[in-house]
Amino acid sequence: MDYPNDQAPGAPVRSGIPEHGRIPKYYAVKARIDRLLAELPEGNAIPTERDLSEEYDVARETVRQALRELVLEGKLRRQGRGTVVAGPKLEQPLSLASYTEGVRRQGRTPGRTLVTLDRFPCPDALAAETGLTRGEAVWHLERVLLADDERVGLESTYVAVARVPRLDADFDPDSSFYAYLHSQGIAFGDADERIETVLATPREALLIGTPPALPMLLIHRVSRDTDKRPLERVRTLYRGDRFSFSAHLGG
Amino acid sequence: MDYPNDQAPGAPVRSGIPEHGRIPKYYAVKARIDRLLAELPEGNAIPTERDLSEEYDVARETVRQALRELVLEGKLRRQGRGTVVAGPKLEQPLSLASYTEGVRRQGRTPGRTLVTLDRFPCPDALAAETGLTRGEAVWHLERVLLADDERVGLESTYVAVARVPRLDADFDPDSSFYAYLHSQGIAFGDADERIETVLATPREALLIGTPPALPMLLIHRVSRDTDKRPLERVRTLYRGDRFSFSAHLGG
Repeated sequence: MDYPNDQAPGAPVRSGIPEHGRIPKYYAVKARIDRLLAELPEGNAIPTERDLSEEYDVARETVRQALRELVLEGKLRRQGRGTVVAGPKLEQPLSLASYTEGVRRQGRTPGRTLVTLDRFPCPDALAAETGLTRGEAVWHLERVLLADDERVGLESTYVAVARVPRLDADFDPDSSFYAYLHSQGIAFGDADERIETVLATPREALLIGTPPALPMLLIHRVSRDTDKRPLERVRTLYRGDRFSFSAHLGG
Repeated sequence: MDYPNDQAPGAPVRSGIPEHGRIPKYYAVKARIDRLLAELPEGNAIPTERDLSEEYDVARETVRQALRELVLEGKLRRQGRGTVVAGPKLEQPLSLASYTEGVRRQGRTPGRTLVTLDRFPCPDALAAETGLTRGEAVWHLERVLLADDERVGLESTYVAVARVPRLDADFDPDSSFYAYLHSQGIAFGDADERIETVLATPREALLIGTPPALPMLLIHRVSRDTDKRPLERVRTLYRGDRFSFSAHLGG
């Protein structure tokens, strides 16, 4: 084709081929399996490690390393004892819209499982970040995020108790927190977000059900209401193999 | 303190402690080293693997795994034969502003090293993404991104030759491409961006000088000029241990 080396438009040129010309063996195998995946429908099982190692004439450990990276990148996923072709990453908008809305827009059913709901006096650092008063009572709500019953993330929300005093009594933790705020007459004004990649801690990996040290996307949010008063501080961890985030800039 | 388990405000509750109470040994070591780092200034060497393994009474491999993760997360970096405390991640705005501007705003000196400049007929996929015409001549500009002479990313830009016909003659590849477009009377209108985490390929790792399979932040951009005409398609890979991205939403 007329694209250099048949690359896809978003792909790097001569992906995986170091300038000095030596391609690591596992990477060559990974590239071949990757091409194989393009032809298989989502959910299809790929050949076994043993079959792949015979077909490509390499050690099983070489195939294993290739598969491990494809799993980390979300192109394959483990299912029972086999490995199947994964679907595309979910694309969430970076916007004031909630997780709920973003997941629904992609035809998935959002869900949440409560891990913790506790309250404590606002510490200095949280006060500095949000504009809350040091020592005032704060809720901490921690939930596992689901999409079609698959665990895909972990979210911690900090919000002043004075804002939503009946959170522990009124709020169904499996429902949208933003819908709850809305029902309390609280409207979002603006937010600052920061996105980075981190490794899941063992606890997080356990809660989300991912391999430990899977790369995750971590989104920090500090939001205010329409009167610019502090609203919430949120820390959301999304599986890096299952999510991407999009934004429209300018215009 | 009054925050549960002395956690930092953005940190997960009981970070690293699985619900069933068993903390992996390497993770306990990682958490202790992490606390140690908070007291050391940037650039300071940390104790050797041997000293740490004696101090914490664990195998050297356990210390090595803890250090490996702290390096992947950008809290430590290798320097010569030692390991030193890394600076905070650079925070780039998700905006129409250029890499150049974002890096300067943080008091760093941006730089770029040319890897490739080639031209080829626009393939179907690129045409579909950008609105360019299939077969029309397209430049592909690939550069390593630098901040204070440190290699921090790799960028591929695709732009129609008709837009900047003299790119190969006029443009200094160590300068800002956006400044060049501006000098040609071309102004940005809007852009769609998508951000995800991927593993560096061996070639990318070699060009950027990172360990292979380091988690990276990959930003895809498709931009248009003020007349909504297609401008560029960009794929920028940033070291996940060195960068975070921020956005202001609403308001």
